[in-house]
Amino acid sequence: MNDYFTDAEKQGFYKAIYSRRDVRAHFTSKPIGDSTLIKILRAAHHAPSVGFSQPWNFILIKDNNTKKNIKESFKIEHKRASKLVKDSKRSEYLSLKLEGIMESPVNICVTYDPTKFGPFVIGRTSIPEAGIYSVCCAIQNLWLAARTEGIGLGWVSIISNEILKKQLELPEHVVPVAYLCLGHVTNFETIPDLERAGWLSRLDLKDVMYYEKWEQKEDSSWRDMEQLIKTNLDTLK
Amino acid sequence: MNDYFTDAEKQGFYKAIYSRRDVRAHFTSKPIGDSTLIKILRAAHHAPSVGFSQPWNFILIKDNNTKKNIKESFKIEHKRASKLVKDSKRSEYLSLKLEGIMESPVNICVTYDPTKFGPFVIGRTSIPEAGIYSVCCAIQNLWLAARTEGIGLGWVSIISNEILKKQLELPEHVVPVAYLCLGHVTNFETIPDLERAGWLSRLDLKDVMYYEKWEQKEDSSWRDMEQLIKTNLDTLK
Repeated sequence: MNDYFTDAEKQGFYKAIYSRRDVRAHFTSKPIGDSTLIKILRAAHHAPSVGFSQPWNFILIKDNNTKKNIKESFKIEHKRASKLVKDSKRSEYLSLKLEGIMESPVNICVTYDPTKFGPFVIGRTSIPEAGIYSVCCAIQNLWLAARTEGIGLGWVSIISNEILKKQLELPEHVVPVAYLCLGHVTNFETIPDLERAGWLSRLDLKDVMYYEKWEQKEDSSWRDMEQLIKTNLDTLK
Repeated sequence: MNDYFTDAEKQGFYKAIYSRRDVRAHFTSKPIGDSTLIKILRAAHHAPSVGFSQPWNFILIKDNNTKKNIKESFKIEHKRASKLVKDSKRSEYLSLKLEGIMESPVNICVTYDPTKFGPFVIGRTSIPEAGIYSVCCAIQNLWLAARTEGIGLGWVSIISNEILKKQLELPEHVVPVAYLCLGHVTNFETIPDLERAGWLSRLDLKDVMYYEKWEQKEDSSWRDMEQLIKTNLDTLK
């Protein structure tokens, strides 16, 4: 494999980055082919991990009883959450579709096992959380790979981890990091659901960047960058 | 943008997934162009985030004093960690190159700010950690985009978060999630450093997968999958 990426290769990569969506509606019942699922999981498994510890496991779920029980947990947590929304936003909140557990043909629980290759893992002694961060990198690989294969994916976090652990018989030391719903879709939206619904807007890139220190928006050694980032970035995509 | 990915587009995407490395050696002093850096940061900013909260910030660092102080923190933490390694592995551990803070022209600290768009964030009421998981997804986007642009990236986690917070003047509520070193490289390795050094091996995909429940390796509804995953997966890549 050549080190260098051609423009066509970059284009394929950035298409995955910019067309990936968090999918809740639009799932179809068409099954996901096994070889497609393997390609997606294999991309996840090739994520970086602290000290090469590969601390992830992927539990594939099709069983309707399990899905129903997890959907019940969603309903309870969703109701609980709705009480925390400002009164003026509650009806809007309740109108949002926030999961596709039953409609998606495959659910995947991604877990973190801190005991794998342990107890000493390179790079995990000062910041133990680095283990769980590795699992998140695998989830993002999985998500992007699903998109390239035409598979929609939605991450459901309105759910009780205790119920998940019980349903999937996770040992005490194993952390459920993500509960994902995957399936073919009628279409991918161009704009993220919550942005399209007017719930929140995407921030400008310049608004999430600082130079040298927190909240420092100007710095002599970054002057060209500051200027460039204020211009139309879409031409740089 | 068409929903469907052509084989050429998929090939570009998977090349990023499989050729991405955690880079510690091989950095050159050649500066990273501003427009390249913006492409990489823009990919990070287009990661998924719980409730569209975009809770990340990127602090770009070139200042040699800051880098030196962070390198000092690495040295202290590295020494501390070496005492935890088994005696039989210690000299091997000490021979590994584990950071490129000074050699890489740009360092980036990626942070998590739980107050952004808060306190109520959709999807963060049952599992508050979902906020920090979003930041990790952004880091993985950043990493993959760097690779496509020919920029090496190494994540340094042998470091004190307290020192990082002090050096970068982070407020108390902001969490430093990753400290990244970026730069052009002489070459990208084909095999991850720790695998090449014989420290650990990559697990087989089948060894990180379960069906329906934890530790369940067989299930009647996944029989074809179980068979397929035992065959040579490289042909499916």
